[in-house]
Amino acid sequence: MAQHAPTAAVLLIGDEILSGRTKDKNLGFIADYLTVLGIDLKEARVVADIEDEIVAALNALRVRYTYVFTTGGIGPTHDDITADAVAKAFGVPIDHHPEAVEILLGHFKEIGREPNEARMRMARTPKGASLIANPVSKAPGFQIGNVFVMAGIPKVMNAMMEEVAPRLERGAPVLSQTITIQGGEGDVAKPLKDIQERSPEVIIGSYPFESPQGFATNLVLRSRDQSALATAMNEVRQMAVELTRNGKVRGWS
Amino acid sequence: MAQHAPTAAVLLIGDEILSGRTKDKNLGFIADYLTVLGIDLKEARVVADIEDEIVAALNALRVRYTYVFTTGGIGPTHDDITADAVAKAFGVPIDHHPEAVEILLGHFKEIGREPNEARMRMARTPKGASLIANPVSKAPGFQIGNVFVMAGIPKVMNAMMEEVAPRLERGAPVLSQTITIQGGEGDVAKPLKDIQERSPEVIIGSYPFESPQGFATNLVLRSRDQSALATAMNEVRQMAVELTRNGKVRGWS
Repeated sequence: MAQHAPTAAVLLIGDEILSGRTKDKNLGFIADYLTVLGIDLKEARVVADIEDEIVAALNALRVRYTYVFTTGGIGPTHDDITADAVAKAFGVPIDHHPEAVEILLGHFKEIGREPNEARMRMARTPKGASLIANPVSKAPGFQIGNVFVMAGIPKVMNAMMEEVAPRLERGAPVLSQTITIQGGEGDVAKPLKDIQERSPEVIIGSYPFESPQGFATNLVLRSRDQSALATAMNEVRQMAVELTRNGKVRGWS
Repeated sequence: MAQHAPTAAVLLIGDEILSGRTKDKNLGFIADYLTVLGIDLKEARVVADIEDEIVAALNALRVRYTYVFTTGGIGPTHDDITADAVAKAFGVPIDHHPEAVEILLGHFKEIGREPNEARMRMARTPKGASLIANPVSKAPGFQIGNVFVMAGIPKVMNAMMEEVAPRLERGAPVLSQTITIQGGEGDVAKPLKDIQERSPEVIIGSYPFESPQGFATNLVLRSRDQSALATAMNEVRQMAVELTRNGKVRGWS
């Protein structure tokens, strides 16, 4: 994958993921989304609702990757400390964002809710941040530098990602092809390693699973170079034919 | 949560999670499992199949927490590099583990597979490691120091976790109670914050969700101190009664 591509990290924030109470679905969504945009997701971290932890993780990630996407911790309650932590990470003050205040005041008026202090906390952003619109429940996320701060509720986060997408530099899309071998990895490993060594522009992954007929393996070839991908795929197909002919595997598709 | 408890981190290893191809289920399983054992999961990371990344993440985590649990990258193919990376992180050589060799030779004989070089790679462990039995597909995981190296396939990892559990020091179990408020977080936030401030031994989390009747909020109280938990829970119930009486929320349960 020698061609230039933006890189990214995901930072999931929340005690509830680490306690097991909430099973995260945001990482998978963002991973799929970035793949479509040609952005390489390189790392993800999950940290608790502890300011120092969020600051340390964010500062480690934001200098290293083109973009960082965070989810969680931007609601009105005492355990929502992401905006403050992001401000601290960037070393800037935090205050009510005028545009966010306007959005929230209008929204609470419309639904007949009191714009109390807790609710208006959701308008606070680090100095220099721009908003990420929230078409689902209005309280916005925000962008500061290369960091995108989004909600933890999947439905809201997914909508925010749509708002964020136009701001992102895209890479050449990663092309991917899969072949399924009816058999374990043990006999595939050696010839597959040889193909990988001959194909530096292609990343070949081997993912075993249990099929109804016994162990099977998905071989996934990924590359930004269409012709390199086609060449490697051809070799993998030949390998599959040969392994089947020799009775080493039950078949392929 | 002032009482002593062991801490832990999880390191998920694999390109397939970062590309979105595989949706991770291992973190949630380990999180639930550790909660039952009274071990506090403090952090999780996902890294790609790149040796330097695995080494750096592992060395950051293993000095910081009582235990580190890794999943993925211990199969027979070229992209399975976890054992080598762990050896490098610990600065020790890697070689075939006699006991693992015996297990694998017996297994491959039984199922009529050739014990080729790739298959026997799965017997390699860093010097000083002890095995983690794999009752599902035989190829073992291993423990070195405070690091537990397990398979990525959930069924295999889950079985390995059962093997690991007796080796772990347990903490006092974290007790947890939940109350559901029929209403958004906005009116709950202020009184809830006051209760949190009066209850340093209890961690109170507020998790909004969309119910069929509109926005609702789960308030989760967690503590190792049963009486502190009961006191805080009482206050939260009183708060819910009052908010309902004032018409701020639709009810609670």
